Amino acid sequence: MKRGIEPGSISELTVARLSIYLRCLEELERLGVETISSHELAERFNLNSAQIRKDLAYFGEFGIRGVGYQVSELRQQLVEILGLDRERRIVIVGAGNLGMALCHHSGFAGEGFLVVAVLDSNPSKIGKPTPAGLLVENVERLPEIVPQRNVEIGVITTPAEAAQPVCDALAEAGIRAILNFAPARIQPPDGVKVRTVDLKVHLEELSFHLAHQPQRRG
Amino acid sequence: MKRGIEPGSISELTVARLSIYLRCLEELERLGVETISSHELAERFNLNSAQIRKDLAYFGEFGIRGVGYQVSELRQQLVEILGLDRERRIVIVGAGNLGMALCHHSGFAGEGFLVVAVLDSNPSKIGKPTPAGLLVENVERLPEIVPQRNVEIGVITTPAEAAQPVCDALAEAGIRAILNFAPARIQPPDGVKVRTVDLKVHLEELSFHLAHQPQRRG
Repeated sequence: MKRGIEPGSISELTVARLSIYLRCLEELERLGVETISSHELAERFNLNSAQIRKDLAYFGEFGIRGVGYQVSELRQQLVEILGLDRERRIVIVGAGNLGMALCHHSGFAGEGFLVVAVLDSNPSKIGKPTPAGLLVENVERLPEIVPQRNVEIGVITTPAEAAQPVCDALAEAGIRAILNFAPARIQPPDGVKVRTVDLKVHLEELSFHLAHQPQRRG
Repeated sequence: MKRGIEPGSISELTVARLSIYLRCLEELERLGVETISSHELAERFNLNSAQIRKDLAYFGEFGIRGVGYQVSELRQQLVEILGLDRERRIVIVGAGNLGMALCHHSGFAGEGFLVVAVLDSNPSKIGKPTPAGLLVENVERLPEIVPQRNVEIGVITTPAEAAQPVCDALAEAGIRAILNFAPARIQPPDGVKVRTVDLKVHLEELSFHLAHQPQRRG
């Protein structure tokens, strides 16, 4: 099924939704649900059923008309589509609070993702233990660490001004997928996928909710 | 324009996209662009032009046929729609690495959002300074702090098992909007909007990219 998918033809939003569908299917599997229609799936998790069908259609035929999707089968197919059928190794650059938080946050690098190095340029941080039991290493060792430890994903948790040079160094070391938490626009090097995480989006969503909620009576 | 919007009728994804459009318009304003069509906006920022028009249509008539949107006018309208025309005050519960990272991360609580308290239940953390210059306070003080400091948003950065009781305590103290970073499903109390941030979604997006990229030649 993976063959023939042009990743450029699938939008980032579609991929993010596949990841959400996967989480929903895992939940359904835990609950013992065996089949589910796109309508039920949409209703249960507050999604859009037409969108679900459209998103999945990029990857082939799923589900049986009138019956719906086989939960565990679709889950397994999403695992494969998302490339989660093998471990992906991560290097975190920037051993500040955010880097330290991410390297042992089970909602981030658990199940299928493994942080194998945390790097920094600050001598006072190098050699310090991380909460996950690694030691912070010198960022200058990046070119050896990436191939030696089979690192595929770089995570940038530096201050904004270091983000572009760190991104370039990661690409130079052979990394093809970068997650950037620094509040900076990054120019992605050729052939490298850079995803900048905008943490403020979530606060703005809550602000929208606060601005439009019915006035409470005192 | 705010009047008459039923927040329940607008999907979370639409609101998240408004936040992204706002970021794009801010960028365009910095670059001195005065008007832009939905097509140009889509092309420039890798968005979907039909989606842009549909998302904005919920909130009224924007743009002039054949000319496009007035950048600064639309930006200001999005600021109002998202409720960003006033400061929103935040309490962070959980003074671990993630809580400490978020309380001074300019990509999180800058411009329009102000962290006014960082709380924890661990006596060894209470009284410690945060990177932003606050002192960590006892979570038991939540019921006084929320009304005294006009807190509207609660951010949960506790371990998973504490997330639900902290959420309930925030709601009890009068908070109506909660951002949860703990890897736990939370049952939102009545009338409270809870948004759980799934940090792993971003890693899965990169995994998709890695799984489907053209093989490199050695």
